[in-house]
Amino acid sequence: MHTSVDAHAAHVRSLLVFDLGSESIPLEAALGRTTARTTTSPVDLPLFRNSQMDGFAVRALDLEVSTTLPIVGEISARAAAPEPLVPGTTVRIMTGAVVPPGADAIVPVEDATVTGDFVTIARARRSGEYVRDRGSDVFVGDDLVLGGQCLAARHLAVLAATGLAEVEVVRRVRVAVITTGSEVRPPGTEVVPGQVYDANQVALVAAAHATGARVTLIRHVDDEPAQLLAVLDEAVGVADVILTSGGISKGDYEVVRELLEPRGAKVEHLAMQPGGPQATAVFEGVPVICFPGNPVSTQLSFEAFVAPILREHAGLPARREGFRTLTSKLTSVSGKRQFLRARLGENDTVEVSSGPGSHLVAGLAAADALVVVPEAVTSLAAGEMVEVWEL
Amino acid sequence: MHTSVDAHAAHVRSLLVFDLGSESIPLEAALGRTTARTTTSPVDLPLFRNSQMDGFAVRALDLEVSTTLPIVGEISARAAAPEPLVPGTTVRIMTGAVVPPGADAIVPVEDATVTGDFVTIARARRSGEYVRDRGSDVFVGDDLVLGGQCLAARHLAVLAATGLAEVEVVRRVRVAVITTGSEVRPPGTEVVPGQVYDANQVALVAAAHATGARVTLIRHVDDEPAQLLAVLDEAVGVADVILTSGGISKGDYEVVRELLEPRGAKVEHLAMQPGGPQATAVFEGVPVICFPGNPVSTQLSFEAFVAPILREHAGLPARREGFRTLTSKLTSVSGKRQFLRARLGENDTVEVSSGPGSHLVAGLAAADALVVVPEAVTSLAAGEMVEVWEL
Repeated sequence: MHTSVDAHAAHVRSLLVFDLGSESIPLEAALGRTTARTTTSPVDLPLFRNSQMDGFAVRALDLEVSTTLPIVGEISARAAAPEPLVPGTTVRIMTGAVVPPGADAIVPVEDATVTGDFVTIARARRSGEYVRDRGSDVFVGDDLVLGGQCLAARHLAVLAATGLAEVEVVRRVRVAVITTGSEVRPPGTEVVPGQVYDANQVALVAAAHATGARVTLIRHVDDEPAQLLAVLDEAVGVADVILTSGGISKGDYEVVRELLEPRGAKVEHLAMQPGGPQATAVFEGVPVICFPGNPVSTQLSFEAFVAPILREHAGLPARREGFRTLTSKLTSVSGKRQFLRARLGENDTVEVSSGPGSHLVAGLAAADALVVVPEAVTSLAAGEMVEVWEL
Repeated sequence: MHTSVDAHAAHVRSLLVFDLGSESIPLEAALGRTTARTTTSPVDLPLFRNSQMDGFAVRALDLEVSTTLPIVGEISARAAAPEPLVPGTTVRIMTGAVVPPGADAIVPVEDATVTGDFVTIARARRSGEYVRDRGSDVFVGDDLVLGGQCLAARHLAVLAATGLAEVEVVRRVRVAVITTGSEVRPPGTEVVPGQVYDANQVALVAAAHATGARVTLIRHVDDEPAQLLAVLDEAVGVADVILTSGGISKGDYEVVRELLEPRGAKVEHLAMQPGGPQATAVFEGVPVICFPGNPVSTQLSFEAFVAPILREHAGLPARREGFRTLTSKLTSVSGKRQFLRARLGENDTVEVSSGPGSHLVAGLAAADALVVVPEAVTSLAAGEMVEVWEL
C-alpha cells in the first residue's frame, strides 16, 4: 500500500511551519521582499502645499477677465517659507515650490502674458487650481503599503517619499541543500562510467531561490553516514529547512535512510511517478525533506511538495495551474499520480513532450509544463481535458 | 504641437540599441539570466547504460515462467566497469548502476524471490525492460537549452547533468540612475518646507532591476550643471544607458536641460499625462533618457518608454496588457494620452483608483494597473472597454 501524494503533501506542509519573524532592511534591498506589517505614513503627502505648475501664484478673488498684476517676487522649488502674498499682487512660482500663504491658485506660465514687472491673466481662476494641498495624497497615519505585500518599485517609492529609509519585511526561509551519492560528481570535473554529474545541487538551489527563499548551506556528501551527520549538524544552525536528494530507496548504500531512519525518519513509497521514494525527518528540530536522487524526481518533488509552501512564505503568487486540452492520447500507470513533461500549445492545448522516465533531465528542461494524471486514470484520449501546472 | 507618445517611444527605442555581447558565468549565478546561444550537449545522457531499478540484471533470453538463476555478484551505483554477465546467471544491481555487458533487462527486487545465492523470477522479461540506454535522453550534439532562453532551475539542471559548469548568457544592460534637484533630499534625513524626499532614486533602481538590468551607478545631484556633468562623465564608463529624473521643464534651475540642451538634447513636451516633459540625449555615445521629476511621472515614463526595451534585452516576458471593462465612468484631457492609476477587479473589470495628479505617489503604490486612455477620448462610460497595463 503506497502513501498518497496528497497525504505526503499534507505531512510536508505540517512540518514546514516557520516562525520567521521580521527584519528591517533598507529600501534599496527590499525589491521582491514581502512586508511584515502595514506601514502607515509618518507624514502628510505632499509634505506642504505646493504648485503643480511653473507660473504665477495668485489670489483667485483678485482675478476677473483680463487682470494685470504686479510681479513682486519669485519662489523657487528650493524656497522654504515664502512671505504671504500681498493681495492684488503675484509672485512667480516653480513646480513643486511652496505656495505662499494668501495665494490659492496657480496660473500656468503659458496662460500668462508678461510685460516688464507685470503679468496679464486673461480669465478668472477657480480657488485651488493647480495647487496641490498638503495631505492630498495621504495623511499622516494613513496606510501606505499593506502587510503581506510583495514589494515592487512603486511601493518603495511611496515609502521613500515619506522619508522612510527602511521597511520591515518577513525574514526569508533559510534553506540548506544537501545532495548525496558517492557516484555523484560536481560538474566541471571528469567522470568515469558509473559516475554521474550532480544536477540536483544547482537545480534545488535555483528552485529555492526562485521561490523567494535564501540558500544558506550547499553541500554534497558521499554515501558515508558520518559525513552526512556532520553536514546536518552544520545545517541545523543556519537553516529553517533542510533538503536532501538521493539515498532513500530500498537498496544498500542509502545514506539518508541509513542515518535518519533510526532517528525517526518517515520513509515512504508514494503512489506517484516519478518520485515514488520520499522521506521526511526532523533533525534537532529542523525539518528535513528528502527527495529521491533521480534529477527529474528531485525537481518534481520539490515543485510538488515544497515550492508551494515556500512561495506562500515569500508572498509570491502561486504556480499557474488549470485544465487544458490534450493534443494526443496518453497512457498512465494505474494507482499512481503521474507527472508528465509537456509543452503548452495554442488554444489552451497541451502536448506531452518527453517520456515518463525520471532520468530524462533534458526532457524536463525542454518542457514548460507538467501534465498531472490522477491515480485512477490509465488512459486519456486526444481532446480530453487534463490538469496542467505551468513551469 | 506636442510630440506624440508613440513618436517619443520610437525615438527612445532607436537610442536603446545595445551591442551587449555575452559572458560565461557559473551555473549557480545563472538563474533568471538569458542564454546567448544554443548549448548543445557535450555528452550522451545518460552517460552510460544503467539500471532504472534496484534489482537483478538478467539476459531476457534466459527467462521463462519461473526461472531460478544463481546470483554471482553485485553492482553498486559506484561500480565503474562490471564484468560481462555470464549467460544463465544474474547479478544484483542498484538504481543508476552500469548494466553489465550481456545483460539486457533488470528485474526489480520486488518481483524477485531470493533464496540463499539464488533468485527465482516468476515471468519472462522484455529485452530492455528497466534499462536506461546511453543517450536515451539526449545524444552528444543535441540541443540542450536554446539561445534566448530565460534560465530556470530545470535548464541549469540539464547543463549540470552533462558536466557543464558554466553557461554563456547575454550581458545585462548596465543602467546609471541620476536623480536631480536641490530641493530633493535622501529618505532618512530631515527636511524643511520646500524640500521633498527622493522617491525616484529607489523607484528607478528597483524598476531597472525588475527588468533584468544591472544598476552600476546611483547618484543624486543638486541643480548644479557642473555636478551633473561630473556624474555623467562617471556614468559614461560604466553604463549602457543613463536615466535621469527632474530638471527638464521650462522653469529656471532645470539642470538637465541647462546642461544637455546645448549638447544636442531633444527636449519635448509629450501629448501625455502624467509625464508631459521628456528629453533624450546622447552623452559621449551613451543614450540619456530624461524623465520629469514628479515621482509618478518618473515611474510611468520608465514603464512606458524604457521598461519594455530592457525586458526584451533581458529575455523577460512582456508586460501583461489587454482590454477590460470600466466599472465607473471617467473623463480625460483631449489630445493627451492619459495613464490613470487603477485596480483590477473580478470578471475582467478595472476601476480607476486615484486622481490623475503626477504627485500622487501613494495612489500609484495602491494601484495594480494603469488604464491607458487614448488621445482622442475625453470620456468613457461605465461598462466601456479600456486598455489596461498590469503593474
